[in-house]
Amino acid sequence: MKKTIGLLLSGCGVFDGAEIHEAVLTLLFLDRADVAVRCMAPDMDQLHVVDHLTQKEADEKRNVLVESARIARGEIQDIAEIHATDIDALIIPGGFGAAKNLSDFAVKGPDAKVHPEVLRLLKEMMDTAKPIGAICIAPATLTRALADRSPKVTIGNDVGTAAAIGTMGGEHVDCSVEDICVDEKNRIVTTPAYMLGPGIKEVAIGIEKLVEKVVSLC
Amino acid sequence: MKKTIGLLLSGCGVFDGAEIHEAVLTLLFLDRADVAVRCMAPDMDQLHVVDHLTQKEADEKRNVLVESARIARGEIQDIAEIHATDIDALIIPGGFGAAKNLSDFAVKGPDAKVHPEVLRLLKEMMDTAKPIGAICIAPATLTRALADRSPKVTIGNDVGTAAAIGTMGGEHVDCSVEDICVDEKNRIVTTPAYMLGPGIKEVAIGIEKLVEKVVSLC
Repeated sequence: MKKTIGLLLSGCGVFDGAEIHEAVLTLLFLDRADVAVRCMAPDMDQLHVVDHLTQKEADEKRNVLVESARIARGEIQDIAEIHATDIDALIIPGGFGAAKNLSDFAVKGPDAKVHPEVLRLLKEMMDTAKPIGAICIAPATLTRALADRSPKVTIGNDVGTAAAIGTMGGEHVDCSVEDICVDEKNRIVTTPAYMLGPGIKEVAIGIEKLVEKVVSLC
Repeated sequence: MKKTIGLLLSGCGVFDGAEIHEAVLTLLFLDRADVAVRCMAPDMDQLHVVDHLTQKEADEKRNVLVESARIARGEIQDIAEIHATDIDALIIPGGFGAAKNLSDFAVKGPDAKVHPEVLRLLKEMMDTAKPIGAICIAPATLTRALADRSPKVTIGNDVGTAAAIGTMGGEHVDCSVEDICVDEKNRIVTTPAYMLGPGIKEVAIGIEKLVEKVVSLC
């Protein structure tokens, strides 16, 4: 039986949804690792819609699940239908969606509220000792959800975000874009990706290591 | 001086825009080839907007350039501003956008009309002997634009589309997803990608070969 890895998306586009390159690279390395993938996203309005050409907010509503389906080529489910028993591990790509839709960390910082279904699934994963991977800014939402576990994570080296992770009860570790941070106790793997850049080939190196580590922990 | 490769996008999402995986994989392999990338798309309304969760048409308008900016992380220009003198080669990912927005091949078949700026740039590339790569269904639009050159291309093995390519003046060659078709005379490289699937890791093999060949032809 193939392992099944959940991929939690948060829209489609770096400024208001899941970071597209990070999500696609994760799909590539998961497929190369010969695992099955189950894409999911919350069925909710995006916090906002950003015109990615002008980077200005657009007067428009879009749904996180519907937009995430673009990255998943239609093969996606509402996260409310997914339980930890359905998957062997979970990976969360970054992009502002991970901190605007999965939680409101981008707006509220350490006082962020995590989407209830995201919170539920993350807690179920921890309670059943299943590994979680989080990319780019997603570790901030993860830390807010799992503060009682004192997770050790990286978002690269941004001082303000690192401090916020500490305030929420996590431990931040500086990390380069081509490397990963592993919290062995909690089975959490993180990598900075586009929190550091500089380009897709460097981001791919860190994400490939993250996927390999998460799959090996299953 | 680094070579500069143009990437012509047609929206963001397989059913109404550029196929996201194909576009991101192209960006990855271009970055690994150490070339500069110049993303572009036509500034026009999409032919339509498809809800990628239900695959039904949505009552909505979206702009091809604005949506393509999601894949390009905001670093993109209107194709009207780009000339063959600005780039050393051009690559066109697939997705229905390549046959709905760059041309209307998906609706009109061999009678398709190519977007005027796309037609202009493709002809400029041919007139200056600069290589073009086309992925998935994009070779159909390419054939319509460059019929006078009798291009030799592949879209995999779909009999109807292959026949339409013949009707438009091209020559279709069957090809596997992990391989490329090279028209040495016209310096055109094509690969079937998601016209065949079956998954992202196979699609990546063909796209990696296409990128390497296009860059080597510069």
